[in-house]
Amino acid sequence: MGDVKSKRVPRAVREQQMMDAAVLTFARRGYRAASMDEIAEVAGVSKPLVYLYLNSKEELFSAVIRREAAALVAAVRAAVEAGAPADRQLWSGLQGFFAHTAEHPDGWAVLHQQARTHGEPFALEVAAMRAEITEFVIGLIGAAAREAGCDENLAEREVSGLSHALVGAAESLAEWANARPADTRPSAKETAATLMNFAWTGLGPLMSGARWAPGG
Amino acid sequence: MGDVKSKRVPRAVREQQMMDAAVLTFARRGYRAASMDEIAEVAGVSKPLVYLYLNSKEELFSAVIRREAAALVAAVRAAVEAGAPADRQLWSGLQGFFAHTAEHPDGWAVLHQQARTHGEPFALEVAAMRAEITEFVIGLIGAAAREAGCDENLAEREVSGLSHALVGAAESLAEWANARPADTRPSAKETAATLMNFAWTGLGPLMSGARWAPGG
Repeated sequence: MGDVKSKRVPRAVREQQMMDAAVLTFARRGYRAASMDEIAEVAGVSKPLVYLYLNSKEELFSAVIRREAAALVAAVRAAVEAGAPADRQLWSGLQGFFAHTAEHPDGWAVLHQQARTHGEPFALEVAAMRAEITEFVIGLIGAAAREAGCDENLAEREVSGLSHALVGAAESLAEWANARPADTRPSAKETAATLMNFAWTGLGPLMSGARWAPGG
Repeated sequence: MGDVKSKRVPRAVREQQMMDAAVLTFARRGYRAASMDEIAEVAGVSKPLVYLYLNSKEELFSAVIRREAAALVAAVRAAVEAGAPADRQLWSGLQGFFAHTAEHPDGWAVLHQQARTHGEPFALEVAAMRAEITEFVIGLIGAAAREAGCDENLAEREVSGLSHALVGAAESLAEWANARPADTRPSAKETAATLMNFAWTGLGPLMSGARWAPGG
């Protein structure tokens, strides 16, 4: 019966179901402990079918990382208010980021923890996604500097450093928010506001020439 | 001759030499590709001696992570100007952090990349170090809030979120700084200043009640 049913489902749909099951299983069990048996069971298909479609646990994990990374980048890009002032673009992008990581905690766990914890080939996939998001933030901070007319004062190196700081802060905050018990977990908007207060209330004065200096 | 010489070196000193060689080899080759042969060669000892002292590649890697994590935490703690206002404590702590990660790029690569990329037992060691540093930052931000008299306004959750953002930003900046070509690499003090400008020029107004708000 199972076999008859699986023949009716198009391959592309079946593959997505297997990947959904894999995300859940990798996030909860960890990459090493996750078995193809369990993934097949969660997906409601036979183990040979998983191997037939996705070859091996390594290839399934790679496919899952690529899919989840693409979904996260797409969510951030879709959320950004194009054409708005830089702070609003950042605010909308951060809301998109934290909404996506909150709604897909298993996908985020796979990207942020599992993919970076099981060897270079997987970690490199995540590094590529991170580089794409960082480039986007570099563009935003550069635009903010131009808007504030302080283009000259912020060197390329400073903008690059600030962007890496912001991306690291966002990743760390998403992990922190998802790890909190449900009754004290901030909403995606609240987490985005925490980071805007940290980053923009700071980046804002910075663009206007403010610098922190050691006091007396 | 080598054997005669190695008998003259106390075991504790020998172990440190092996761990120095291991840090260098793990950071440059990656955990998986690093061989005990190469580590022994770099340390200038025989491979059986490495196994005799440190049992296995896994145990050697664990020992290296514990040693490097303890050294980093100790460097930060030693750098902090105890009793100073919170922003100076943070500034001195950040300088200690970035000085240590710049002076020990291999140790930092092992902690930040290798240890998180090769399975849960190693990643958990780093998570413990991170938790210790985050607790320290939570204490600092809490102290800054009290100094600014806004203890009531910043909830525990906000302080915790800001601290995780700051730690994530610092980790990301250290990785960024070490990855830059030597001729454009900022000094530890410059990197610390980038983060102070990002975090404190932001956290400072935040403590005085400033909040970022979406504009019209």
